[in-house]
Amino acid sequence: MNESNVTFLPAGKHIIAPPGSRVMDLAKMLNINIAFTCGGKGRCGRCKVFVRKGMETLGPLTETEKNLLSPEEIRSGLRLGCAIWSPLAVDLVIDVPEDSTEHLKIHTGGTSVIVEPDPSVKRYVIERSLFRSGSLLPYEKLILDKLEKEHGLAQVSFGYEALQQLSKSISNSEEGEAVGLTIWNDREIISVQREGGRGIYGLAVDVGTTTVVCYLLNLNDGKILSISSSGNPQANMGDDLMTRISAVIENEENLFRLQSSVVESINRLIKDCCVATGIAPEDIYECCCAGNTCMQHLFLGLSPQSLGFSPYRPVTKQGITITANELHPPLLMNQKGKIYVLPSIAGFVGGDNVSVQLIVNHLAPNNGIRLILDIGTNTEMALADSQGVIVCSCASGPAFEGMHITHGVRGIIGAIERVLMTPGSIEVKCETIGNKKPIGICGSGLVDAIAGLIQTGLLHRNGVLKADSATPRLRVGASGEREFVLVWKEETDLGKDIVIGQRDVIEFQKAKAAIQAACKILMRRKKITENQIGKIFIAGAFGQYIDPDNAIVTGMLPSVPSERIQAIGNAAGSGARMALISRESRREAEAIAEKSEYIELSADPEFSREFMQSMFFSLPQ
Amino acid sequence: MNESNVTFLPAGKHIIAPPGSRVMDLAKMLNINIAFTCGGKGRCGRCKVFVRKGMETLGPLTETEKNLLSPEEIRSGLRLGCAIWSPLAVDLVIDVPEDSTEHLKIHTGGTSVIVEPDPSVKRYVIERSLFRSGSLLPYEKLILDKLEKEHGLAQVSFGYEALQQLSKSISNSEEGEAVGLTIWNDREIISVQREGGRGIYGLAVDVGTTTVVCYLLNLNDGKILSISSSGNPQANMGDDLMTRISAVIENEENLFRLQSSVVESINRLIKDCCVATGIAPEDIYECCCAGNTCMQHLFLGLSPQSLGFSPYRPVTKQGITITANELHPPLLMNQKGKIYVLPSIAGFVGGDNVSVQLIVNHLAPNNGIRLILDIGTNTEMALADSQGVIVCSCASGPAFEGMHITHGVRGIIGAIERVLMTPGSIEVKCETIGNKKPIGICGSGLVDAIAGLIQTGLLHRNGVLKADSATPRLRVGASGEREFVLVWKEETDLGKDIVIGQRDVIEFQKAKAAIQAACKILMRRKKITENQIGKIFIAGAFGQYIDPDNAIVTGMLPSVPSERIQAIGNAAGSGARMALISRESRREAEAIAEKSEYIELSADPEFSREFMQSMFFSLPQ
Repeated sequence: MNESNVTFLPAGKHIIAPPGSRVMDLAKMLNINIAFTCGGKGRCGRCKVFVRKGMETLGPLTETEKNLLSPEEIRSGLRLGCAIWSPLAVDLVIDVPEDSTEHLKIHTGGTSVIVEPDPSVKRYVIERSLFRSGSLLPYEKLILDKLEKEHGLAQVSFGYEALQQLSKSISNSEEGEAVGLTIWNDREIISVQREGGRGIYGLAVDVGTTTVVCYLLNLNDGKILSISSSGNPQANMGDDLMTRISAVIENEENLFRLQSSVVESINRLIKDCCVATGIAPEDIYECCCAGNTCMQHLFLGLSPQSLGFSPYRPVTKQGITITANELHPPLLMNQKGKIYVLPSIAGFVGGDNVSVQLIVNHLAPNNGIRLILDIGTNTEMALADSQGVIVCSCASGPAFEGMHITHGVRGIIGAIERVLMTPGSIEVKCETIGNKKPIGICGSGLVDAIAGLIQTGLLHRNGVLKADSATPRLRVGASGEREFVLVWKEETDLGKDIVIGQRDVIEFQKAKAAIQAACKILMRRKKITENQIGKIFIAGAFGQYIDPDNAIVTGMLPSVPSERIQAIGNAAGSGARMALISRESRREAEAIAEKSEYIELSADPEFSREFMQSMFFSLPQ
Repeated sequence: MNESNVTFLPAGKHIIAPPGSRVMDLAKMLNINIAFTCGGKGRCGRCKVFVRKGMETLGPLTETEKNLLSPEEIRSGLRLGCAIWSPLAVDLVIDVPEDSTEHLKIHTGGTSVIVEPDPSVKRYVIERSLFRSGSLLPYEKLILDKLEKEHGLAQVSFGYEALQQLSKSISNSEEGEAVGLTIWNDREIISVQREGGRGIYGLAVDVGTTTVVCYLLNLNDGKILSISSSGNPQANMGDDLMTRISAVIENEENLFRLQSSVVESINRLIKDCCVATGIAPEDIYECCCAGNTCMQHLFLGLSPQSLGFSPYRPVTKQGITITANELHPPLLMNQKGKIYVLPSIAGFVGGDNVSVQLIVNHLAPNNGIRLILDIGTNTEMALADSQGVIVCSCASGPAFEGMHITHGVRGIIGAIERVLMTPGSIEVKCETIGNKKPIGICGSGLVDAIAGLIQTGLLHRNGVLKADSATPRLRVGASGEREFVLVWKEETDLGKDIVIGQRDVIEFQKAKAAIQAACKILMRRKKITENQIGKIFIAGAFGQYIDPDNAIVTGMLPSVPSERIQAIGNAAGSGARMALISRESRREAEAIAEKSEYIELSADPEFSREFMQSMFFSLPQ
């Protein structure tokens, strides 16, 4: 017996292989999902596999493997499927990691969604021999006929600039390299390259009020090549949306200033990604943007002034596709490429919410009733059941971002992110980001602290700090208002006691009351109770650091077992990536926006009533 | 009796007019069709009328008339209907030329085609009260719903820049003027005006190898407001197409030079039209261009290099619509407007031929077999019967434009345009343009002269000037070759005898042989004989001056009764105007291009054979 017994994991398929069989070929025979993107030519390095058994029987690493595997990968036992052959009569167990499969995964908050890459922009190659035909058909027609016949593209036509490029690529001899066609959405040839052309890349951009994140992806396989982020420089004209909207109402020229500043910041991020990867901006053919409705308006140079007054009507809610050269100032990409901005749902529920819903639909395709929260200065939430999705938005204020809080800070090094208080004890345990001496408290720490004050009985139901407590931490501060000392001066890096003051509690109450009231209204509309909620998804950075049990104690989140609560990180960015690399996902996003039913709370007396009631805390029995 | 008796021709209506009646008002009373585009304010100059009787009784030209009438028009007896008053007790006969009528007619060579205006670009007005609705629908949707409900526009969407304009036109109060929407092709809103907006205008441009003509039209009623023309400055890089094509093959940068020079020349013409009418280029929303295939390529910045080698394949033959801002250098018009370039039929049968066919289809909708010729350096011809149209193109050389002819000149003042020779007489009668002393001979004169030489028996069948003639006009010239003296030195303004030399006859033979051979091949393909041709249409300036009988004598035109021959002037420009103001006509043009069957003659041995035979003349019996 010279055959080897080769097993592939995790599929569990095995094959009796003749000696000298290449692992790649065996995988193909068994229909095992491994990405041989370069066709097994040892160029792409995508077919990495773990050799779980029989490694010692294989030859040493080939030159190809040395080039394409990192030292760490080599140490972990990875080889390339295209470079290993089964030797005589051994048992070989090959484990195919998910990263080496053809599927594309969108990672979000530690979980991931699998998407089949099908980008809008694709590259086709036409041999020049086509032009040597004696036919009198124009060049344009020769190519379009070929595309229809060989690729089934019946609706495609040339963009004007591509036609100019084609005309210049013609020569009497028609020798030389093939012609590369870059085609958008099977419909428009947006670029013609004389020499086949290089790769095609795409950008997903999460345009946040505070932060802008930019992902550079390979459109062929959907992989992230580079990520960069920065603060949104529009903050110079106002931290919150309303200030920026007012700036535009006051002076129309501020619209261009705001647009320019965000486009330029994205351009800096694109430059970073391009430098990191050696990719030319010219080869970036599509950009998919998600943000809240106002940010999307500003990015597109649409005046958001109508978002400044009731009924907060946006100019448009549709997904918008423009050619890059229509955007002024220009985005650093191929100017004949396309920019797609996700559809919105309402004036204060934007493409970022659509993105988050898109991700959740894939994380929990049939997961019963689910509540999705994207908590920030403005909190958007969606409640979905089999009947559909209702969404709303509420102003939850900047307390969770550390603003308007006495010692509030963002999630920076030294910020208190965890607080543990035990009933009956005067001890307070604080953990800080980076384990440094504390300099202030960030959102997740604030939630813990408020929960602690509730659980240790230091708060009245209406949020007033109790006067009759025995703990020295509860005192009347210099300003004459009550405060609770979280960290004594000497343990801080601030030079003074870090406290939660009465006003801080009130700020928190307003924030949590807005969220709690909005949740209650959504649940009432769907006629469901807290315990019917199958899953709560929390998007955004804040959601990843929050202690769900403590959030429930404060009333911020509906009371469900904490295993039903899942943080999904920057789901807006993840959704934008999905919509970038998959046209199917983009269609889903359009459908989500179309179908989500928006509930306007700002003028709703029911909301005001619920808000007032939600200012109270539920105290432990 | 103080009244005047005023008659209007060609309507034949008359009125007894009180003294001092303005001709304009009389015309209105009688419902006479005269265009008072400016409302009779002496601005537009459209109400030109001939005073056939009673001119001497009218006062001298007013200042308005001096400004708006050209010296030639004044010489021909034209006045302005808005500026003349009927005096006491006279008979006045006013002849209203077709150019001054209100109908939308496309005038072409004295005949005209009536077209219902239905331009691609239209203006709609939306009242601002729409925006005061409490609905949460975005502004975009409010407008689109309104357009669908009130105007049946179900397919329309906002262009990106129009959406930006809309966003800026929003205000909290929504008081003030209505919003004007400029919509292209019932599909795209290309512009939003805060205050309803001004008129919408269009350009038809005939981009000829030698001459560029620009018509400014009101898109609402299809009326011509102004016309201007100039030489094509590309001539600096070569008189003929092949030289320009070679320039591009030699150096790709010449493509941009050629494109720029023609676009800039059109811009100068647009400026002229705008200055004459007071219309802003910003209000010009569409431009429709017709030219030969090479000129259309150059105008669009498409390299025409493939037209320089067999099989003379164009880059594209389709009608092309681009947004104005895609053209570099820019055309002087609204940059969100559209530029439409007519479809072509083959490398040397372009949109100008499609235009001519369009006009002929309307002039002779069911006129049996018809032959259409557009004679120039390149002559395009089409032969149509109920089965369809076949077209071809042949190089007829520049002889008809006076080039390569000893005393050849273009159709300028002093050019001999008519020659009359009588068999048996040595007298030669010449008429010149402008009745000046002759300085040379132009195309129509040359045709007459050759016909005269044939009819007076001075030519052999092979074109050789006879040696044994008695007339002193036939002699051996200084160069040693035979020549025929048309005008003796002392009668010229040239200072020497104006002659037709042997080489001139050969140049003519080559030109007429090409046309004759091509005609024969077309007729053979359709299996028809000369006398079956119901009508011959000759497009272009040359066609208007040519004597058809003499052209038949030379063999240039098939032998049909001369009443079947009709000159249709600059039909390319007329067709471009039709396609500008009527979408139906544009669809017809697309269908013409699609259906015309092209016959390539350049490599056809049958054509070479016919060409050699057609070098001979048919001598009178």
